[in-house]
Amino acid sequence: MATNPEQACFEAGIKFGTLYHQFAGTPVSPDSAGSLETAIAESIENQPFCESVTVDILEAELAAELADSPAEYTELTGRFMEVEVVVEHEGCRVTAAMAMEDGYPLMRLVSVDD
Amino acid sequence: MATNPEQACFEAGIKFGTLYHQFAGTPVSPDSAGSLETAIAESIENQPFCESVTVDILEAELAAELADSPAEYTELTGRFMEVEVVVEHEGCRVTAAMAMEDGYPLMRLVSVDD
Amino acid sequence: MATNPEQACFEAGIKFGTLYHQFAGTPVSPDSAGSLETAIAESIENQPFCESVTVDILEAELAAELADSPAEYTELTGRFMEVEVVVEHEGCRVTAAMAMEDGYPLMRLVSVDD
Amino acid sequence: MATNPEQACFEAGIKFGTLYHQFAGTPVSPDSAGSLETAIAESIENQPFCESVTVDILEAELAAELADSPAEYTELTGRFMEVEVVVEHEGCRVTAAMAMEDGYPLMRLVSVDD
Repeated sequence: MATNPEQACFEAGIKFGTLYHQFAGTPVSPDSAGSLETAIAESIENQPFCESVTVDILEAELAAELADSPAEYTELTGRFMEVEVVVEHEGCRVTAAMAMEDGYPLMRLVSVDD
Repeated sequence: MATNPEQACFEAGIKFGTLYHQFAGTPVSPDSAGSLETAIAESIENQPFCESVTVDILEAELAAELADSPAEYTELTGRFMEVEVVVEHEGCRVTAAMAMEDGYPLMRLVSVDD
Repeated sequence: MATNPEQACFEAGIKFGTLYHQFAGTPVSPDSAGSLETAIAESIENQPFCESVTVDILEAELAAELADSPAEYTELTGRFMEVEVVVEHEGCRVTAAMAMEDGYPLMRLVSVDD
Repeated sequence: MATNPEQACFEAGIKFGTLYHQFAGTPVSPDSAGSLETAIAESIENQPFCESVTVDILEAELAAELADSPAEYTELTGRFMEVEVVVEHEGCRVTAAMAMEDGYPLMRLVSVDD
């Protein structure tokens, strides 16, 4: 009953919810950002229909946060990452992205190519 | 560029990924299942476009698992819950569900009503 | 080799790490704070040697955060909760607490009674 | 009031609870196990007083699980990892470990050297 593009968009949404809520809260510093980016991408790419995941942890944002803090690390949250996910479901390719908008980590569809 | 039903399906997917990966791993027993069901549902209902969430933690499955174990609790995972989520996005109503299929917690679209 | 009070303190630490990293990131609003407090407490009380858990989600802090935001919910993090955990391990009673200090959710031992 | 070794044991417990409940549920396959091991270790090493973390994701156990499954990945849980954490708190060195025992991921103190 759902169309193939609708299924593909549903799958893309699952990847974003998973990525964000599995990894939000992870202790992160500029030095450990690189290994976390790789692990997040490879982890989510395991999921069905997931073609590729690109995670950019914003080291400059992390460094700015830590400059005002006595701690040397913080918790990963939407402010510190930008993500792109590509899903392919039976020939329909969906690209979705997450970035901050008005202080909220907005997840949105970028393109749906059937 | 994405249609309204595609947006609604994307939103439904986000809710499922969030729900599963936020709460999987939570210590749970038959006695604490009820409060966890309520908290999961109310938490996810906070998300944008989320109309309702129903979580059924399968207490009989939990009890069966614990009968074979020295422990009095286990970790929440897909085997122990069934979930239904209803999203409404600009008049398009999407119902999605999660239940076990072949040992994997399958999330699927049940209906898309534009 | 470890003393009984050391074991009890180790157990108390496990409860705090679990509580924080299981539930940080959960979507929360003033309306859903109550059910989440209950679920967190009952969930962690399942763990071995855990006598009691008290969770106070700071609804005034939540409301203040949301007053500045277009969203109607936020993510649970240390700024929005205070926690007390009591562990009893073979007659040794340990109380530990978490509250914000210098912008960091500090977890500390309050008392160790052997 | 708590002794230095008690503080060190409390800190070691926090690391274990964090590690387990932050990363349990992560999608993992034999191919992505390596990057996840590195990210978990580097993430937890950010925490205060944490000297070193060693994570071994048991690829043979993963492969055996997946041989019986239609899926190509599973969720990280205690059955699939062994962990050692070393904490140093004001000269007191605590080593703690996690491995399966009777089907439960047991976290235990290995040594406390003041």
